[in-house]
Amino acid sequence: MQVGVLGTGDVGGRLASKLVSLGHEVKMGSRTAQNAKAAEWTKANGPKASAGTFADAAKFGEVVFNCTAGSVSLEALKLAGAKNLAGKVLVDVANPLDFSKGMPPTLTVCNTDSLGEQIQRAFPDARVVKALNTMGNELMVNPGLVPGEHDTFVCGNDPQAKAKVVEMLRAFGWKSPIDLGDITAARGLEMVLPVWVRLMVTLKTRNFNFKIAR
Amino acid sequence: MQVGVLGTGDVGGRLASKLVSLGHEVKMGSRTAQNAKAAEWTKANGPKASAGTFADAAKFGEVVFNCTAGSVSLEALKLAGAKNLAGKVLVDVANPLDFSKGMPPTLTVCNTDSLGEQIQRAFPDARVVKALNTMGNELMVNPGLVPGEHDTFVCGNDPQAKAKVVEMLRAFGWKSPIDLGDITAARGLEMVLPVWVRLMVTLKTRNFNFKIAR
Repeated sequence: MQVGVLGTGDVGGRLASKLVSLGHEVKMGSRTAQNAKAAEWTKANGPKASAGTFADAAKFGEVVFNCTAGSVSLEALKLAGAKNLAGKVLVDVANPLDFSKGMPPTLTVCNTDSLGEQIQRAFPDARVVKALNTMGNELMVNPGLVPGEHDTFVCGNDPQAKAKVVEMLRAFGWKSPIDLGDITAARGLEMVLPVWVRLMVTLKTRNFNFKIAR
Repeated sequence: MQVGVLGTGDVGGRLASKLVSLGHEVKMGSRTAQNAKAAEWTKANGPKASAGTFADAAKFGEVVFNCTAGSVSLEALKLAGAKNLAGKVLVDVANPLDFSKGMPPTLTVCNTDSLGEQIQRAFPDARVVKALNTMGNELMVNPGLVPGEHDTFVCGNDPQAKAKVVEMLRAFGWKSPIDLGDITAARGLEMVLPVWVRLMVTLKTRNFNFKIAR
C-alpha cells in the first residue's frame, strides 16, 4: 500500500520506517521538498522510501499519518491540501502539546474539543482516526518493548477507516486495539498526556503504557 | 483512628463503610446534621459510625476524605472550616465534573490547574493528597473486583501525608500506589476522567482500571 507520513520528527521517522519494513511504499512529507531529515530517512530506508512536500505525501498515500507537532498540525494539513486528503484515511497521531511555557507541557485544546475533532472539522472529507497518541513513539511500532499485555486505542467517525487502522496496528504488533467510538473520544485520548508526562518523569522511562485491566 | 468523610453519596458511603469495617471511627459529614442518608448510613454501620455537619466531620477526623461532588467541593470545604482542616491529611477523591450540559461530563477546571490544587490553595494549612479519583467507587475499597494487577495513584505536597494515605490504601488492598509527586499532578489524574467515562460506555462496566504496564 502507498502511505503518506507527514512530519520528519521522531514519530514520523519511527512510523515511516516501520511501514517500509512491513512492505509499504512510504512518502515522508515536510514543509519543503528538500528537508534534510527526510532525505536522510529516505537514504536509510531503501527504494520503497521517498520524500516530498506535505502535499506530495498526502497525494501519494492511500492512508496518511499526521505525525506533525500538534501545535502546527492544522497548518501542516492545510499545506497537505484538503483535496489530497479527501477520502483518505487520516491517522492522527499528534498531541496538542504546548511547550511554550516550558515543562510540563499544557494542551492547546482540551475538555470541550480536541485536535482530532479540529482536524475532522477542518477536513470533513478526510476519514480521521485518532490512534497511537497515548504512548512514546518507540512503543507505537514495537509493543513488545513493554512486557505483558497493554493497550492501544482508536476513535473516529468512519468504521471502515477505523478497521483499516486497526489492521495496520495489528501489523505493528497490537493484538486488540480498543475502539472508543467517534472522534469526540479524541478528547479523552489527548487528555491522558499530562499523566503520561508525569509518569515518564516518575518512572524515569518512556517504556510504559496504559493497560485497561478488566 | 478518627476519620471524617465529607459527602453522603456513593463515594462517601463506600469509603466510610470500608473505614468502619477496618476498625476506624468514622463521622460522615453533610450540609446539615440531620441528613437522611447519613442517618441511614450511621444506623447500618454500628457504634463506630456517626454523622454530623461538614464542620463536625472535619473537626472529628485526623484524616478527612473529600467525597463531595467536585463542582461543590470548595464550598463544602469552606463549610467544613479552614481551622478544622488545618494540619489534617485531606484526601481529595473528588473529580471536577460538570454534568450541567449532559453526558459526557466536562471538567470545570483542567490543563493549567486542577481541583486538587484549588483545594490546596484555598486551605494552605491542610495537607491535601489526591487519591482514588481515577476509578469507580466500588473498586476504591476492593481492588480485587478487577482481576490481576492494576494501579492507584497519590500526589500531594506533604510526604508524610502521602505516606499516611498510602498506608490506608494498602489497608484497602492496593499493593503499590504510585506516587506522582506534588499536588500539580492532580491535573493529570483528573484529566483521565474523560477517557474513563468513554471506557465505561465502551466496555459497559465500571469494573475496570488503569494499569501502568512497564
